[in-house]
Parts: sequence; C-alpha cells; structure tokens
Amino acid sequence: MTPESSDRSSGDLARSGTALKHDREWDYELDRIVNAAREREADAVGLQFPEGLKRRAPDVASALRDRLSETRIVLSGEPCYGACDLDLHLMRNADILVHFGHSPMKEQKNVLYVPLYSNVDPSPIVDRAIEELLDPPREDPDCGLVTTAQHLNHLEEIREQLEAAGYEVHTRKGDDRLTHEGQVLGCNYESANMDVEQILYVGGGKFHPLGLALDHPEKRVVIADPVNNALNVADTERFIKQRYGAIHRAMDAETWGVIVSTKVGQRRPEIATDIVESNPMAVEITMDEIDPGRLRNFGLDAYVNTACPRVATDDGAEFNVPVLTPPEYEIAVGNRDLEDLEFDSFHGTW
Amino acid sequence: MTPESSDRSSGDLARSGTALKHDREWDYELDRIVNAAREREADAVGLQFPEGLKRRAPDVASALRDRLSETRIVLSGEPCYGACDLDLHLMRNADILVHFGHSPMKEQKNVLYVPLYSNVDPSPIVDRAIEELLDPPREDPDCGLVTTAQHLNHLEEIREQLEAAGYEVHTRKGDDRLTHEGQVLGCNYESANMDVEQILYVGGGKFHPLGLALDHPEKRVVIADPVNNALNVADTERFIKQRYGAIHRAMDAETWGVIVSTKVGQRRPEIATDIVESNPMAVEITMDEIDPGRLRNFGLDAYVNTACPRVATDDGAEFNVPVLTPPEYEIAVGNRDLEDLEFDSFHGTW
Repeated sequence: MTPESSDRSSGDLARSGTALKHDREWDYELDRIVNAAREREADAVGLQFPEGLKRRAPDVASALRDRLSETRIVLSGEPCYGACDLDLHLMRNADILVHFGHSPMKEQKNVLYVPLYSNVDPSPIVDRAIEELLDPPREDPDCGLVTTAQHLNHLEEIREQLEAAGYEVHTRKGDDRLTHEGQVLGCNYESANMDVEQILYVGGGKFHPLGLALDHPEKRVVIADPVNNALNVADTERFIKQRYGAIHRAMDAETWGVIVSTKVGQRRPEIATDIVESNPMAVEITMDEIDPGRLRNFGLDAYVNTACPRVATDDGAEFNVPVLTPPEYEIAVGNRDLEDLEFDSFHGTW
Repeated sequence: MTPESSDRSSGDLARSGTALKHDREWDYELDRIVNAAREREADAVGLQFPEGLKRRAPDVASALRDRLSETRIVLSGEPCYGACDLDLHLMRNADILVHFGHSPMKEQKNVLYVPLYSNVDPSPIVDRAIEELLDPPREDPDCGLVTTAQHLNHLEEIREQLEAAGYEVHTRKGDDRLTHEGQVLGCNYESANMDVEQILYVGGGKFHPLGLALDHPEKRVVIADPVNNALNVADTERFIKQRYGAIHRAMDAETWGVIVSTKVGQRRPEIATDIVESNPMAVEITMDEIDPGRLRNFGLDAYVNTACPRVATDDGAEFNVPVLTPPEYEIAVGNRDLEDLEFDSFHGTW
C-alpha cells in the first residue's frame, strides 16, 4: 500500500482533503472545484493531470468524491503534455473538465484550469545565478526573465530580487498562445523576444530552457532551477547536431508521412496541406499520440510532424526514421538552406 | 526504398492502381471508394487500416489521390483493432471514412467498410482438419463452423466441403455485434453458441480460436489456419493459469482503477459505474489506448478493464499490476467463486 492510498483510507481526515500529503506542495483548489460543480449541478466532473502528476490523481478524485457524493468523478487516462492537450472526450462527456498544471491556452466554457503553482522558494537559486552566472549589471544591466506556469506565482519576487541586484529586468507577454507575462511554453518562447543578450530562466528541468535557447540562439540562457537546486547555462550543441543528423538522413527519403495532430491545440493542418500538395510522395496522417510504433507501421521513409515541435526535437532519437519539424523538412527537400535551421515555434490557439 | 514505395514512383502504372502488388492478395475496392467520393463530392476522405495492414495504406492513399485529384486523402494514424474502433476524429472531420479489414459492427452514414477478403483457398487445410482432427462423422456428425471477417467469402464452400464429408454443419449468426452468419470477433463468440461438441474454426492466427475456446470451454475447437497452413486444437490451459494468477494477485489490491474506453464500440460505462459505486477505493479512468505506461502513471494497485476484454486476457503479462476483466474482478473482490471464471464476452454495438 502506498502512503497516499493509506491516506485515502484514513477516515475523516481523508474527507477533509487535509489527508493529501502533497497539499504541502500543490494546491488542488478543491473548494473551487466543489463550488463550480455545485453551481453547475454537475453530474460528472473530469480530472486531467499532466503525466508527472497523474499519481496524485486518484487521491484528488477520492477527496472530491467524498465532498460531491452525487457527482461522478472521472480521471482522464490519456497522456497530457500541456494546455494544448485538453481531453476532448472528457470535455464533451463531463459537465466540467478540470485541467491541472497548465495555464489556459484558451478559455473554454466548461474547462476549469487549476495551475498548481510551486511552493518552492526560488530566491536562493536566483541569488546564486546573480552571483555565479549572470553577467554583472555593471557589464550588462539588461536581463530578460522568463518562467513556466508552475513558477509564475513567484515572477514579481524574482523581478524585485534582480532589480535589487542592479538589473533592468525585461519581461513581456508573448503571443495569444501564452496566458501570462514572462511565461514560456515548450513550443513558444515569444515572451523572450526582446532586445537583451542574457535571459534568466527560472524553473524546473531542462526541457523549457533548451527550447528557449534553440529559439533564441543569439541569447545566453541562464537556468536557475529551484526544484533541483541546479544552476546552468543552456547548451544546445548536442541537440543541434542531432537535428542536422536527422535532416541529412531525411534527404534520402522518397516517401513522407505528414503528421497532423488530433490534439486541440496542436493542429496545423494548413502546413500539412501545403506539403502534401507540393510533394506527390507525401501523405497526410492524423493521430493523437505520436510514438515510434505507430510510425513504424506505415513503413514510410521519413515524417514531418506538424504537431508539438518537441516530439521531433526531443524524442527524435527514439524513432527509427527521421521525424522532422516543418522548417527542418524545408531544408531536407532543398527549399531552404541548412544555415537557416530554426526552432519550430508554435503560434496561436485553436 | 521498399518495393511498395518503388511502385508508387513507377509512373503511369502507379496511377492505374495496378501497381499495387498486394492487389493480388487484397481487393481495396478503389472503384467503390472513388465512386462514393464523387457521388458525395467529398473534400476529404479518411482511410483507416488495421495494424497489420497499415503498411499498405500509403500506396492505397496514393492510388486514390491520383484518381481523386480534388480530394484530400488522409490516413488514420491511430491504432485500430476492429470495427469497434472507428477513428472518430476522421469520422467527424472527413466526408467519408473508409474502414478497411473489418465488417460493420453498426452502419454509419459516412463510413464505408471495405472487408478485404482473403484470397487464400481454405479447402486444403479444411481437408486436413477432416482427415486428422475432427471427430469422424460416424462418431459425431455435428460440427459447428465459424470464421473471421477475412474468410467469410469462403464460408459456403467450407460448409459444402464438410457436408460432402458427411457432417451436419451448424452455423448461426450471433448477436447484433456480429454482421454475418458464422462470424466471430475477438470479443464475441455468440455464433458458436450451439449444441455441438466440436467446432471448426477456419482463419488465421490463434487470437480468435483462443477466445472461442475460452468462451466455450465445453467444446473442442479445431483450428484450420489457411494463411499459415497450420492445424491445431485450441488449448487454453496456459491462459487460464495466467488469469488465475492475475486474479489472485488482485485479491491484495486496495486501490482500483476502472477503465472505460473512449473507442466507440468498446464502451461499457454502466459496468464501471456499478463497480465505482460499490467500491470506495475504485476510481473511473477513461482512455483510448490501454498500455502499461498509462496505467503505471496512476500508481493504482489493480485495474478492471471494461473496454476490449482481450487487453486483459492477451496482454495481461505486459502490465506490472493485475488488469482484470469485469467477471474476473467480481472473483477478486469475493462476489463470485473462482470456479465461475468466464470469458468476458462483449455484446451490443453503441
């Protein structure tokens, strides 16, 4: 029995929601969900968690079920990688879909977004970034600042911390794919589109800063990761080599699959149509999850992925044939020079 | 370059459709598809192939594209395991969805079913079954006969062959999940629900006869496989042991996930509701594909699968926790005796 399942059976405590040990880390906003369900007299409430938090889902479902005894609580079992990736089946079949861990890409009438802000204090790692990796303000006073949905609640503190150290802090809101000032997504770094030479990224992991550095190769990206207490400068060299490798292999391809996503915020059918119309050896394929087995079954020589750009760039090595982004495809078929390789930024909503 | 991709680039031949080498095996009914698309003035035609035939899909798409130059041809990249598993996204977004390789579970206005009948002659292997494995007609004149969608075109020949050998041949149409007399599905063997002691199954592979023998344990199932030229008697012992093993492991489970499919012909939400309402440690989870990674993310002790029964019985060993069918769940939680284990037959359409 896991500690969490133990909580679920611990009687009254479980009913109050306080038995959720992870409430120390995440605020699931159960009151807001319960109120919304009661207001709308919901028969069914769907809960969708990102992959890294799915393990918390059964306890959250249990706590809600205790408070909403007349309401069916249903978990989404589909993989979920962002606000681009709403569970459309649950959205259609439940009265409310609660989407955890991402900020809204577009408001939907029956979707409740619960951001799950981090309660980790970023100031120690930001202090170290100022001390050790950012150019000192006397040399370069301008510093861009970006973060992810999880840490947006700390953005103003971080700004003040940098200003107190002498920086002029630059933030901006990106395009309409982004909800908040200073926010980046794995597929969109428009909020870093500013005239600075250094950018401080505050957030967990390497996924977002890697995309940031790929999209803004002229900028130095300093990573302050409060979750893993790690400090780094983003290094894209290995990734760029991999991408050149994939593009070169794809130059020999005769047959192409052009993938169009069925995920609501990952659809770019117009790019696929352009490719298929100009290439008689290309065929359009629609799917939700893109995995090596699904592509292997078709036996095509190479694929262009118009869905999430990170599938090609980050998971590329898992596929047995080249999977390119649309700008990479243009290079592979000779429409664009190799030097013009750029990150496949995803704009707009749906 | 594969032989098939070579066909695609072989000029005029490719345009006639005759370059499809596999036309020797399968009739894709291109004329019927082209006529339907023209009649309905289709802007987009979706093509959905079962997993084993996805490799043929790009060539079929190419041949159709050559004949329907104004129509977008789109392949379904979702896994497909039966007529229960229509690509709903393509069904909604294309004017016609062509579903290959399965007989209709339920007619849909914009779905065209192309059965892909086998052109392999079953008579030699049926002769051998009569000689070697069926009880001779003087001992037992009654013989049931079933087959799969692929071989239905040979059903009457096989019946006559058996009758000529002296058998009284029994066939029946199952429930409304089955289109044809004598047809079985992986999840439904109602067409074998007849008063005979021996049944001849004619078809490829072991998947269907295994289900048949599990659903009709009192009958002797003789397998005549014309595709692999193989003769056998279905043996369920190893499978039944595995199922007992999974049920025993699940008896220790405290937390349960109850899976409801989003696939149109695999939905049994009422079974899930019954389980969740009677078990406070069970939570409903919806998903399309059921794979080990998706279940592992939730960290529950065991799962009940109300979707395709074969996921639990045939893929059970791939999961790191027990995945049970609904009747197996009833045994694991003590509502039913172990001796009452039965195959999870799936009835009805949607």
